Parts: sequence; C-alpha cells; structure tokens
Amino acid sequence: MQALVTRLIHACGMVEVADRIAHSPGAYLAGHRALANGAPVLCDCEMVGAGIIRRYLPAQNEVIVTLNDPSVPDRAAAIGNTRSAAAVELWADHLEGAVVAIGNAPTALFHLLELLDQGAPKPAVILGFPVGFVGAAESKAELAERPRGCDFVALRGRRGGSATASAAVNALAAGLPELNA
Amino acid sequence: MQALVTRLIHACGMVEVADRIAHSPGAYLAGHRALANGAPVLCDCEMVGAGIIRRYLPAQNEVIVTLNDPSVPDRAAAIGNTRSAAAVELWADHLEGAVVAIGNAPTALFHLLELLDQGAPKPAVILGFPVGFVGAAESKAELAERPRGCDFVALRGRRGGSATASAAVNALAAGLPELNA
Repeated sequence: MQALVTRLIHACGMVEVADRIAHSPGAYLAGHRALANGAPVLCDCEMVGAGIIRRYLPAQNEVIVTLNDPSVPDRAAAIGNTRSAAAVELWADHLEGAVVAIGNAPTALFHLLELLDQGAPKPAVILGFPVGFVGAAESKAELAERPRGCDFVALRGRRGGSATASAAVNALAAGLPELNA
Repeated sequence: MQALVTRLIHACGMVEVADRIAHSPGAYLAGHRALANGAPVLCDCEMVGAGIIRRYLPAQNEVIVTLNDPSVPDRAAAIGNTRSAAAVELWADHLEGAVVAIGNAPTALFHLLELLDQGAPKPAVILGFPVGFVGAAESKAELAERPRGCDFVALRGRRGGSATASAAVNALAAGLPELNA
C-alpha cells in the first residue's frame, strides 16, 4: 500500500490525503495479482484510462471505458440514472476479477454497488475515487463500510478525481519503479 | 472568470482552491475568444486532452499533445531536460494565439517560459496547473509574476493536475452550460 499512497500524494500534491485513505487489508495484493494475471481495468471515464501508464501494465491488460458507448444515453434514460451509471452495466462481461477504477462519477460507484447487491460478478478490487460535492463522499463511505466482499481502496471525502484513480492503478501495476529509475 | 473558478472547484472537490487562483485581468476573455476563433489547445499530457469536453469546443478546435511523439526522447536527451519539456518544443508551429493547458509537468511550463524569453510566438492564454512537490509551485509563481506578455490563469501552490487544467479549458470553451441543462 505504501507505493499506492505515495502515488496518490504525488497525483494531487497533498500529503494530507494519506490520512483519508480507506482500504481492505488485502487490497494492494489483490489488485497487483489481478493485473499480473491479465485482468482488465474498467474505468468510469476516458481521463482515468488516459492516466494509466500502459508500459507499467504487466500483461498488456485491456483498459475498458464504456461511457461513450452509443447505447449509453438510451440505457441511462431507461434506468433513470446518469450516463456514468448506465455505462457500468456494460461492464458485466468483464467484471469478474477485474480492477475497477472510478475517478469521476459517484453514480457509477453507487450503481456498481447496487449491481453487486443483485449478484453481479465480483471485481478483484474497487478503486473508489469519485470527486466533488454531490454524492462523492457518500459513495466512498458506502464502499468502505459495505464493500460487498470485494477488496477496495477509497479516498474518503470530497477529494479524488481521475488523476488519483489512475495513480492507484499505476501503483497496483508497478509500485514505484521511478525510485529505481 | 467565475465559471472557470467554479469548474476548478468541482474538478478537485475543494472550495479552498478559489483563494489560490492567480490570473491576468483579460485571461478569460482572451481564452474564450481564441477558442471561438479556432485556436488549437496545446496540452502537456494525454490526460489533459482526455478531459476536454469536445462538444463544448466552439470551432472543432484541434487538441494537440506532443508528449508521445517519437522524436521526444532523443530531443529530451539533446536538451538535457525532461520529455515533457522537449515536447513543448514541438508546439512551435501552433503556439501563436493558442490556448496552452499544462496540467502535469512543471518542466513543461518552465520550458515554455524559456522559449517565450527566446522569442517564441505568444499563446493567447497559458493555463498553468502543474501539480506536486518538485517545481510545481515555483513554475506557477514564475508564470504569475512574469507572464511574458501572455494572459494566464494559474493555481498557486502544489495543487493542480490534469483535471484542473481540463476544467479550465472547458470553462473557456463553454462557461457553465450545465447550469442551463
């Protein structure tokens, strides 16, 4: 976890975030092993995907962002939720054992937790980094308090964002290789 | 500027950043007009480009990221600087009147200022949002204190990052259209 915390601090320039990180005991190892075994990375927005350092991924892991899938707007209308939440439903076939990185939308994290309640396959680890004033803190508190049997890392409170979510993935993938560069 | 400040706050979940924003008096209008007139957006990394909401851009403006150009590693070695700094040299043909968005690398911002000292064409506005502990605060202080005749917006201190840089571009492009959505 230390590499992950260090990367988070560097991603936002704030040492204070170290005090707000919640995680399950096995989160780092679960995520690291999942990536080593070829698990895909499911991201809630393009920025999270863009921040993942591809050369660090140990198995040319697939990075999947479904937010801009053409079916998403209609699905969002059908379920009466955001596009970000609707996009999570398109993860179904990839969810088992995946690394999930949510760096923007509280509704994506809330909806993922709902789908897990309904029996969706469990990801290896959920990286919860929604940001902002509407639901972000609440979505991460829900993840940290009832992680539905999944490993997780979350940054409590309003802070978070794409760069922190990408940083967490990069840490799971490679630790802190810059220290040896 | 109010739309820009609001977007920055939402991008990082912290109202406190409002107190740390420095900008030239004409920055918002200069950036807004440049985009309306078709200026390109020059970004220091892929994440900044990924966070720009394309449908907000008023003139299908080009978003340019040169960091992964194949010539960059050799150029970095030749100038004895980072890849991020070397990538800025590839902006030369696009710099005049452009919107520059730096959301990651202090060395990119420092090198841009050096090139301006050497007579490089002036961008319409420089959005300075490098993040972190090594040079970020210093690069933004240098921009704010000696902006080389350019309009600018900068977030003073260690905080910043791709999401804030993208948010600033989105604000220049479209203000806060979500308020009317």
